[in-house]
Amino acid sequence: MRATVFHGKGDVRVETVPDPVIKEPTDVVARITHACICGSDLWFYRGEAKWEPGWRTGHEWMGVIEEVGSAVTTLKKGDRVIAPFAFSDGTCEFCMKNLQTSCATGDFWGQANDGGQAEAVRAPLADGSLVKVPDEVANDEAMLKKLLPLTDVMGTGYHAALSAGVAAGKTVAVIGDGAVGLCAVLSAKKLGAERIALFGKNPKRTAIGRGFGATEVVEARGKDGAKAAMEMTHGGFDCVLECVGNEESLKMASKIARPGGTIGFVGVPYGAAGLGLSRMFSDNISLRGGVAPVRAYIPELLADVLAGRLDPSPVLDLEVDLGGVPSGYAAMDDRSALKVMVRP
Amino acid sequence: MRATVFHGKGDVRVETVPDPVIKEPTDVVARITHACICGSDLWFYRGEAKWEPGWRTGHEWMGVIEEVGSAVTTLKKGDRVIAPFAFSDGTCEFCMKNLQTSCATGDFWGQANDGGQAEAVRAPLADGSLVKVPDEVANDEAMLKKLLPLTDVMGTGYHAALSAGVAAGKTVAVIGDGAVGLCAVLSAKKLGAERIALFGKNPKRTAIGRGFGATEVVEARGKDGAKAAMEMTHGGFDCVLECVGNEESLKMASKIARPGGTIGFVGVPYGAAGLGLSRMFSDNISLRGGVAPVRAYIPELLADVLAGRLDPSPVLDLEVDLGGVPSGYAAMDDRSALKVMVRP
Repeated sequence: MRATVFHGKGDVRVETVPDPVIKEPTDVVARITHACICGSDLWFYRGEAKWEPGWRTGHEWMGVIEEVGSAVTTLKKGDRVIAPFAFSDGTCEFCMKNLQTSCATGDFWGQANDGGQAEAVRAPLADGSLVKVPDEVANDEAMLKKLLPLTDVMGTGYHAALSAGVAAGKTVAVIGDGAVGLCAVLSAKKLGAERIALFGKNPKRTAIGRGFGATEVVEARGKDGAKAAMEMTHGGFDCVLECVGNEESLKMASKIARPGGTIGFVGVPYGAAGLGLSRMFSDNISLRGGVAPVRAYIPELLADVLAGRLDPSPVLDLEVDLGGVPSGYAAMDDRSALKVMVRP
Repeated sequence: MRATVFHGKGDVRVETVPDPVIKEPTDVVARITHACICGSDLWFYRGEAKWEPGWRTGHEWMGVIEEVGSAVTTLKKGDRVIAPFAFSDGTCEFCMKNLQTSCATGDFWGQANDGGQAEAVRAPLADGSLVKVPDEVANDEAMLKKLLPLTDVMGTGYHAALSAGVAAGKTVAVIGDGAVGLCAVLSAKKLGAERIALFGKNPKRTAIGRGFGATEVVEARGKDGAKAAMEMTHGGFDCVLECVGNEESLKMASKIARPGGTIGFVGVPYGAAGLGLSRMFSDNISLRGGVAPVRAYIPELLADVLAGRLDPSPVLDLEVDLGGVPSGYAAMDDRSALKVMVRP
């Protein structure tokens, strides 16, 4: 089969690799029908994360099951499934706490595991990880596009909002207008927030944010963004959804939370030394969140999408086939694409 | 009257200063009967916090009211009161949320305000800040010594425990065997924790910790402490009570929290660049806490002390009169004293 392989900074290639086979009785093999390129893929693409040549790429995928391991009990050949970006056994201490990203035996797609930017995948711990799409909508293309963001960015945005304690009556700031930030806006809206300020500078993206429920857009970040935030709220936001992960945005988050408020952080903190710890101490600002246990949220968000209450698909603004994956990376790297959908 | 005045690194002096008088109708003047020297006073004593010569010292005190401003409604002359280390109006947004340390009009004792290491004090915002000791015990010396830690360290330890979500069935690590750390042990016990590991190296102090409810003492911190913590819990503690505030202990806290766990931080983070943010992200470890809104906890802790359920007084291991305050600082600086009680 063909799969995307990392070779070095700015260099991913679609190559022929061995077909996936069942190795463990808890595996399935799935044909991939939909995948994405993620903003966090840019960390290795730009050479900022330490990746080894030969590693597979892609942690967001949906597909159809082709082979089923002997110990798999909840899935069968032909099932359409959504994969969360981490696979997990569903039975350990942390899975039981809905923290599947810390699963005792799980791992993430890609690297030494199969990746989603490919024709097919060996999926370990299938019972614990994969969520079946109801048969009635299993071939509804428009519906499938709405479900695809549940593999990562929608669940990650929701994790930011839940971690920050978003609820009716809370004021919410979302830092970052990438796909996760926009899904965080959608999540804040779902949780009943009435005031949702989106901090981002890209008009095409913030326009999607307004459609998702942002009541205000602030075209500033860092110090200027913080100043604007403090003025517009007279002292800061109850909930700050940090969806970037760099030093500037983490520091900004510490500055614009209201005393007693909470930062929900889901931006991978690459190279970020720290937060504004003194300010957090002085005003009892909490930090919650981290890598999102997306598996925990898929059933609820799936129900929302099926019921017509939720549609994150506008974040997918470019479609490529498998051969187009390298150009998709380039389009996300130069920010001409917000998020790329791959149809292998 | 006489009061303690900061002059420079290692130099505090008891001097004659003007007697306090009512300046605002919400003030009272109180004669100080009990005060403390705090571990956090060592930050300016050691020249690490930027203090100006002439500033008053002491933020932990109890006393008897001598004069009452015209707008004060809940206190009268002769009342015995406990002062939390910050004064607050009791009416603003943040006081209403029991976050009195972020009060819109409040401040902290000492510096340009009167301090507690003195014969008397002008106490602003008296209705919002001071808590009356019931008349029946107002002259019970043993009881008053048990109440004195409620001005800061007991409430601060309790804040650490509450912030970290300590409850029955949780495993708890307390980093630091100073007065706050020991009161954090007492608080974890009060909240029903069955396993409380105290990380500290001073045998005299950890012995008090055992008396307060520590089930294990680990005589290591930093990397060695973290290694021990991971081994003894097979993966970390649910609740980590960070009661030091330096880089080593904050980093250690990030390392020894269990996935999904919470750090309750109450050690003033002087010079600490940061936490282990990557580990916190990977395993969804939360950070909560900050400067303790002690005022919020005094009524509950006062009831505990009066009922005989709580006694933090063993942390007060040295008593001096007002003239002895400079020697008390020296004794805390060289760690020969754990915490000094001042009887002006």
